[in-house]
Amino acid sequence: MIRLYNAKIMSMKNDTNVIDGEVDICDNKISYIGKNRTENDLKYDREIDLTGKLIMPGFKNMHTHSAMTFLRSNADDMPLLEWLNKQIFPMEAKLKGEYVYTLSKLAIMEYLSSGITTNFDMYMFEESGIKASVDCGFRTVLCSALNNFYSNVDELEENYIKFNNMSELITDKIGFHAEYTASEELIKGIARVADKYEAPVYTHCSEGKPEVQGCIERNNMTPVQYLNKHGIFNYGGGIFHGVHLTDKDIEILKDKNVSIITNPASNAKLASGIAELSKYHNSGINLAIGTDGPASNNALNMFREMYLTTILQKLLLDDPSVMSPDIVLKMAINNGAKSVGLNNCDCLDVGKLADITVLDLMQPNMQPINNISKNIVYAGNPSNVYMTIVNGKILYENGEFNIGENPVDIYKKSQKIIDSMR
Amino acid sequence: MIRLYNAKIMSMKNDTNVIDGEVDICDNKISYIGKNRTENDLKYDREIDLTGKLIMPGFKNMHTHSAMTFLRSNADDMPLLEWLNKQIFPMEAKLKGEYVYTLSKLAIMEYLSSGITTNFDMYMFEESGIKASVDCGFRTVLCSALNNFYSNVDELEENYIKFNNMSELITDKIGFHAEYTASEELIKGIARVADKYEAPVYTHCSEGKPEVQGCIERNNMTPVQYLNKHGIFNYGGGIFHGVHLTDKDIEILKDKNVSIITNPASNAKLASGIAELSKYHNSGINLAIGTDGPASNNALNMFREMYLTTILQKLLLDDPSVMSPDIVLKMAINNGAKSVGLNNCDCLDVGKLADITVLDLMQPNMQPINNISKNIVYAGNPSNVYMTIVNGKILYENGEFNIGENPVDIYKKSQKIIDSMR
Repeated sequence: MIRLYNAKIMSMKNDTNVIDGEVDICDNKISYIGKNRTENDLKYDREIDLTGKLIMPGFKNMHTHSAMTFLRSNADDMPLLEWLNKQIFPMEAKLKGEYVYTLSKLAIMEYLSSGITTNFDMYMFEESGIKASVDCGFRTVLCSALNNFYSNVDELEENYIKFNNMSELITDKIGFHAEYTASEELIKGIARVADKYEAPVYTHCSEGKPEVQGCIERNNMTPVQYLNKHGIFNYGGGIFHGVHLTDKDIEILKDKNVSIITNPASNAKLASGIAELSKYHNSGINLAIGTDGPASNNALNMFREMYLTTILQKLLLDDPSVMSPDIVLKMAINNGAKSVGLNNCDCLDVGKLADITVLDLMQPNMQPINNISKNIVYAGNPSNVYMTIVNGKILYENGEFNIGENPVDIYKKSQKIIDSMR
Repeated sequence: MIRLYNAKIMSMKNDTNVIDGEVDICDNKISYIGKNRTENDLKYDREIDLTGKLIMPGFKNMHTHSAMTFLRSNADDMPLLEWLNKQIFPMEAKLKGEYVYTLSKLAIMEYLSSGITTNFDMYMFEESGIKASVDCGFRTVLCSALNNFYSNVDELEENYIKFNNMSELITDKIGFHAEYTASEELIKGIARVADKYEAPVYTHCSEGKPEVQGCIERNNMTPVQYLNKHGIFNYGGGIFHGVHLTDKDIEILKDKNVSIITNPASNAKLASGIAELSKYHNSGINLAIGTDGPASNNALNMFREMYLTTILQKLLLDDPSVMSPDIVLKMAINNGAKSVGLNNCDCLDVGKLADITVLDLMQPNMQPINNISKNIVYAGNPSNVYMTIVNGKILYENGEFNIGENPVDIYKKSQKIIDSMR
């Protein structure tokens, strides 16, 4: 048992209100949340005084390609297709499972050091990625990057059963890379699997204008409309990016209970555009936030994504009042969990999984405390992350990682991997 | 004497190339930069092994209102004029010199923890701000916020002489708030002082569209053209913001050797717009970067400003190739120093002032090392700042401040100040 006391607590159960008090963790769950308890018969393994610190639910990074850490700052400042074809794909062809294991661990370290407790991953060598998460103790949702050249429908179904029975930390979702890399036959096959398991489906969709234009030329309809026609969204799911959506697309997504997972940093750096999040939000669609992979971002930092989520809307709409920090925090936490059905770690409450981030408020960018959620969204950065707890275990504390392997070894191995590819 | 060895060094003397080696500091200057020296008769006060770390010149935050820390996250998500008139001005009316002293120290802590070694400040109670910088050991350039309701031309001149003789850490520049808060008579008076001392002049200019429109209605020309007509830029200087400039404005600024100091975070949050930095850059104007004050930003974090400087151009021009990290780093460091004539701390070299930032590269967001300048601009954040040295003195090291006052006392006093105003 762990006792975290003398803290400020933002449970995000209903809102971003903050109370003073204590959170207790028993095994992997929250066993108490409320005022500090002075008398108590419980035997704690650790009692941690969090004076000047804030306990809040961990951030949910709902779209990423973790193992792409090896391509961070390797090629930048290029258009999307040139970047993919000339830089990304040739390097990815050299990957191996053991590489993905180490490169995923490097990403997990960055998640932990910026307060992220769950990622939603899409990448190759899934079992290596899963092993990295399980070995670190990190919570991962994943889906396949299935496309015309990678994996197949049988494997999708097989992995869906297999991966969902591997660890309490792992959740597999039905997914595929994108409309533009999947044949009609493949898409129909994916829809059949989704129907069989009554499962939501996740995919990249409407990231760039050329992609949407290409789909319209091929199919006479937008990617959302085309995928919907084939039953991909019969049980909901989510689309990554969703930068270029028509009103009809928005209607379909709302109607089919499909989440939009926005990736503002990646969309900006690749000049894909600014998603009309405020419009989506007003339509009632569930909006979540992801970093996308480190090759296109290049950071895995939810503070930056939250910040961009609001300020880019202000610029887009020429209106400083849109997208308040409270809305953004809800997106980064509650809505993120909701987008993948993780209803047991969406906020802090007794019985919920202990996926917790502790921020240090006694730092110059968090002072004075006029409004904590504004401080987090408008002024926060990873230097404010004091502690990250996943599934009841402290994996990051005051700059130190507790993930079963020495960070320096992970850095060295990662460097060796990319150096060996050049 | 201080010896920093086993480091990577990005001197930024000519470019962003990185070497392995050592930097020595004697008094307030760099006495050696080059390969690690194994044998050496010199007596050092401290020898610091910086394995895995990068020594680089400190960031120059070339526009800020430091003492506005008390208004961080106090009022947000409002249009500029409503925000100023209803929230900012009434609170500022309650300020005192002793408040400005503490609130400036809070800002200096944030500068140091994000690798900033110089700020260019514009605020009231200048002597209190100066005292805060001198007491902390921080380098400050300042200019007056002179306008129709605050200060006067005689005081401007008097302070110019006085402040420039107070400390080696302090430089005063001729400045005023903005065209829209200054009468023609006042502007003429400021130009006379600038002419007398052959001094550059600094001011807010062309931040928002209504401001530019107002000037055109009053004077039949843009703010840049109007100020130029009155001789404000006869000896160069700089404009803060410069979001809405015509081609003729750009020509004048280039011709008169006037720097543009961009504030992308503040301009985004207040929905003022995106400055056409790529165009300005191509015209040959000296571009520097500032955070603006913490009331409108809400952080004082040059990593975020650098990041926005590049990604907002990519979005604006629909072109991911514009504004490379090398250009951005030059803006944040060399050009920043150049914009205020601080030619003795614009890069690392023997004889230059020891204004140094040390970044920790052994952190997950900085690994692997494919390209250091891209890592800094696209993935860096204040958690990477290991050490900040100003004028040869280590003011920040591994999370600890060495500024002559306990951080917790500064936090408590700052909170008390804002609480007392409500």
